[in-house]
Amino acid sequence: MAGPEKIYFTYNDIHETIKKMAAQIDSSGYEPELMVAIGTGGFIPARMLKTFINKPIYTVGISYYDMENKPKDSPQKIQWIDEVEKKLQGKKILLIDEVDDSRVTLEYCLRELLKHGPAGIAVAVLHNKQKEKKGMIPEEITHYFAGIDLADKWICYPWDAFDIKQQDRLAAEQ
Amino acid sequence: MAGPEKIYFTYNDIHETIKKMAAQIDSSGYEPELMVAIGTGGFIPARMLKTFINKPIYTVGISYYDMENKPKDSPQKIQWIDEVEKKLQGKKILLIDEVDDSRVTLEYCLRELLKHGPAGIAVAVLHNKQKEKKGMIPEEITHYFAGIDLADKWICYPWDAFDIKQQDRLAAEQ
Repeated sequence: MAGPEKIYFTYNDIHETIKKMAAQIDSSGYEPELMVAIGTGGFIPARMLKTFINKPIYTVGISYYDMENKPKDSPQKIQWIDEVEKKLQGKKILLIDEVDDSRVTLEYCLRELLKHGPAGIAVAVLHNKQKEKKGMIPEEITHYFAGIDLADKWICYPWDAFDIKQQDRLAAEQ
Repeated sequence: MAGPEKIYFTYNDIHETIKKMAAQIDSSGYEPELMVAIGTGGFIPARMLKTFINKPIYTVGISYYDMENKPKDSPQKIQWIDEVEKKLQGKKILLIDEVDDSRVTLEYCLRELLKHGPAGIAVAVLHNKQKEKKGMIPEEITHYFAGIDLADKWICYPWDAFDIKQQDRLAAEQ
């Protein structure tokens, strides 16, 4: 039985997408004062982005899928930001994740961050899947950046590869 | 005037080093229950390592260098772990960073983590610079893993590259 169609990215593909997205963010006029990376998917994109937008990175760990990769009833916090009010209040935030899939994790995280009185929040995702979304972006969010809009395929990220040479081959064959 | 000698790594180099280090950790008999990544340098290595050692990642943000890349008097916490006792007490931790340079950040972080009663802490760094260390590894630390032992050169990581193709060329020319 054939599974869902897969799409492969190399690390350099991701790095190039991040670089383009940084230029998009820059020309939007939104000037983030800090980044919040959603872990663990957002860790690598956020660290790459820091090279182009040199702001501190805070991280939050959010888990929405269980060990069998099925969605839970709602996202859960694995780690949150300590002294969160002090760090977010009155600040312009850039929230970063690797993929906007169902949008549930993003909405959850945005609503949690909004509780702490930031001056603004923008969203940046590497990949936005073109599909019906279960979550929504709250109206307080003024900017949404996606590196690439994609069909609803199974995205294979380089950091999940057991064999990185095979990952590169599969990406090149596409 | 020539600056210090530089050494370049590609993303795939780093991924392969992490894979080998995961095998080292596995055969050591130390079984971490969770990882703590030191940000921002440890974010990418830790996320890669999660593919081979599937444990939750907590992050801490530690800053030891100022905007001009000079060391401060002592490391400072940018972000710490919320509800830290609950998360670390009685747990076997694997602390991850990209480089063991002066060892000051590592020592600071290890001593802070030790305050919370973990069952054990092991250290894993991509690169250990062979140089005189200002910090020390506390004796409570039973395992220390380094992906590669290196001369004291200026390490150029792929995530810091403005031009990732040039990074690959420079790494290949070495």
